[in-house]
Amino acid sequence: MTSHQTRTRTLVEWALSLSYDTLPADVINRTKDFFVDTLACAVAGRDHIAVTAMLEYAKTMGPADGKCEVIGFSDVRTSPAFAALVNGASAHVVEQDDLHNSSVMHPATIIYPTALAVAQDVGASGKEFITACVVGYEFACRAGEYLGKAHYEKFHTTATTGVLGAAATTAYLLRLNADQFVSAIGTAGTQAAGLWQFLLDATHSKQVHTGQACATGVFSAYTSASGLLGTADILEGSRGMGAALGNLDPTPSAIDGDLGKKWSVLESSFKWHASCRHTHPSADALLALLKEDGVKYTDIASITAYTYKAAIDVLGLSGEGKTVHQSKFSMGFVLAVAAKKGSAGLMDFTEADLVDPELRELQGKVNMVLDDDINKEFPARWLGRVVVETKDGRTLTRSVDVVKGDPGWTLTREEIESKALALAKYGHVQDIPAFKDAVQRIWNLESQDKIEKYSFA
Amino acid sequence: MTSHQTRTRTLVEWALSLSYDTLPADVINRTKDFFVDTLACAVAGRDHIAVTAMLEYAKTMGPADGKCEVIGFSDVRTSPAFAALVNGASAHVVEQDDLHNSSVMHPATIIYPTALAVAQDVGASGKEFITACVVGYEFACRAGEYLGKAHYEKFHTTATTGVLGAAATTAYLLRLNADQFVSAIGTAGTQAAGLWQFLLDATHSKQVHTGQACATGVFSAYTSASGLLGTADILEGSRGMGAALGNLDPTPSAIDGDLGKKWSVLESSFKWHASCRHTHPSADALLALLKEDGVKYTDIASITAYTYKAAIDVLGLSGEGKTVHQSKFSMGFVLAVAAKKGSAGLMDFTEADLVDPELRELQGKVNMVLDDDINKEFPARWLGRVVVETKDGRTLTRSVDVVKGDPGWTLTREEIESKALALAKYGHVQDIPAFKDAVQRIWNLESQDKIEKYSFA
Repeated sequence: MTSHQTRTRTLVEWALSLSYDTLPADVINRTKDFFVDTLACAVAGRDHIAVTAMLEYAKTMGPADGKCEVIGFSDVRTSPAFAALVNGASAHVVEQDDLHNSSVMHPATIIYPTALAVAQDVGASGKEFITACVVGYEFACRAGEYLGKAHYEKFHTTATTGVLGAAATTAYLLRLNADQFVSAIGTAGTQAAGLWQFLLDATHSKQVHTGQACATGVFSAYTSASGLLGTADILEGSRGMGAALGNLDPTPSAIDGDLGKKWSVLESSFKWHASCRHTHPSADALLALLKEDGVKYTDIASITAYTYKAAIDVLGLSGEGKTVHQSKFSMGFVLAVAAKKGSAGLMDFTEADLVDPELRELQGKVNMVLDDDINKEFPARWLGRVVVETKDGRTLTRSVDVVKGDPGWTLTREEIESKALALAKYGHVQDIPAFKDAVQRIWNLESQDKIEKYSFA
Repeated sequence: MTSHQTRTRTLVEWALSLSYDTLPADVINRTKDFFVDTLACAVAGRDHIAVTAMLEYAKTMGPADGKCEVIGFSDVRTSPAFAALVNGASAHVVEQDDLHNSSVMHPATIIYPTALAVAQDVGASGKEFITACVVGYEFACRAGEYLGKAHYEKFHTTATTGVLGAAATTAYLLRLNADQFVSAIGTAGTQAAGLWQFLLDATHSKQVHTGQACATGVFSAYTSASGLLGTADILEGSRGMGAALGNLDPTPSAIDGDLGKKWSVLESSFKWHASCRHTHPSADALLALLKEDGVKYTDIASITAYTYKAAIDVLGLSGEGKTVHQSKFSMGFVLAVAAKKGSAGLMDFTEADLVDPELRELQGKVNMVLDDDINKEFPARWLGRVVVETKDGRTLTRSVDVVKGDPGWTLTREEIESKALALAKYGHVQDIPAFKDAVQRIWNLESQDKIEKYSFA
């Protein structure tokens, strides 16, 4: 393997120079915030068939007595690859995990499951865990920024660059040297995968992508530790990700620009609504409009949601939304839910709602329209504007440029705890005090010598 | 999931209609031939660092007491996912496994490791094993034909369509119903991955691709059996493999044309030379020319190898060939070896050869040139022509259109056994009689109620 100074290698060397003591306080705090958020997402998703199928797989293929937990299944102990697999799936399935705008990917559902699994395997401390997550965010998000929106048109970036984040998190926790770390990134990137076809028929590939990105990242770093060589320049090489995965106009400086000045974890957003993040600007605009202008959902004649191309591309695949999960990818259905219920939270999307004639009628009144100005800003900014026509002839407009949960309007710890508790209840957690205790332990993560078990019944 | 009659579903339903008794005798025999060939390739590759790193991973992440063997490691018993992973890597690393022309992929290194692992897990019979392999070949090769050479420019097709073959082989052995089988194909295809960047720096991704294609195929079928849904039209869907993986002009009829009339396993070639298959037409032409025209390697002033674009694209990445594996991807080095040694077999590529000044000098006299007529025929036919200029001023030309090992010039059972034995010796098999016995058991595979262990020390 060459030790040619690629941008990937620069990023690796910077990552290896990091330690907990070098991290800014807000980076540390936000890293813990998203850990709480992710743990709660995983519990909320634990009973989904995509998750239980992968758990069954873990039991069939893995050991029965591993060191790693599967969140929400306190009787299961498996190896890091399988723990990362199942937790990476469960943390993503209720669509409440975080979103990093400029990379168009969801880092938390990849980074935390991987870090938890590997930390429990190697006996890492809370400080090492936090640093490894910060490292993972940088690889996943910077690679997503590098590949850009042309890549996202064809590939599920959360998986394709998530696998680099998972490999980096693992590499950091395994204390790989720079050559091994670069190898791990190469091995991960050559396995980058994830297509959008599943959106068309409401199947479970979204969770497969996240779970497998975690497991493949783990694979890449552990095998690098054993001497397997990965290619040195998987991002920028002439046959690498930038060249092959889409018709790209990649942004090389994203890989190693502003190291230590911009932090991906600080740029990531909490999801407040429980739907695809592409619906949030429109949902927020609509909720504000209805409230401030005193419009009831029964007054609405039509809703036009002005948005960017990627939203139309992705949301346009989901049709009317046949399942609860798919309905969260229908702009019409999400805006109908928001209008009728006044919110679009986890409890607002149910099987019963799928057959509610009022919601389906309202959904039919929603149109998405491409707006050039909004599109130009994407993915740096995720903007939205809605125009509502009322049955009595009024035309009302509202725009948003920051949605609740964004870095510019982030959640307080009270709001994070409240969201987490709602997720835990959605996941039928019986022992709520134990869940609350787990959250408190995360707030004090840096004081722990070893990452202990978080699972609860 | 929709039960819409896609071509994928047609292929699935046809596969489920197959049984051993419906297979033509030549299909059965060739399937056993390639099993012997693959078993021997795996033994030959067992000590490569890429393989031992993955074996280490299997031990760390998998169970210690599984039902499945790792070929050449008689003390290891693991679960099917890990057995398929390691055997899928070892069977590919010495570059002696089979090649299916029109799909531009190596099916055997995917299909047999997967079939062996799953058959040992479920206790399948020899007849079921054979049929499952035939099924796997059809999925892997037909998908490769569908995606075509534009896909191959960016992706390692052995992995990207191999994963479909692995999923199909597993699905057949698990006796999935049609809906589950279609799901398995969808889950496998959305994870299709494998880039060429590793060729540039002689790293180990080629073996990662094949091993992981096996493991991911296993994952896809086992999770489908547990209820995980994969998308119904991953090949032809608007966001599927044909649309996203390259700038393609796919051939839909390849997916379900001539079912039961053409058999992929009969279209596949044995590798006689131990180098990248793209070098074989030129190597055969050169060997014939030198022999028939009485030219010695020391007489050569220059060699021009006229070939197709894909050969230039792939072989052009390997530079001079820094490692034994990479040297097999240098047209110049392979032709130099063939010219000097009179053959380009497994024993003809060594560490010592990498520093042989005669070989390096001769390598420098070789040029590859694109030939439009040859390129037009690719990948249906892999043709080659060499022009040799001698130091005494002669210009000699030789073309080949069928190389040794191709379906039109296939190996006899004696030649297969002889090649297998050479591979076993290369892999330092101590108990040669036990290896020979394993080969005999494969010749009688259909008589076995259960696939037993093949490993030997």
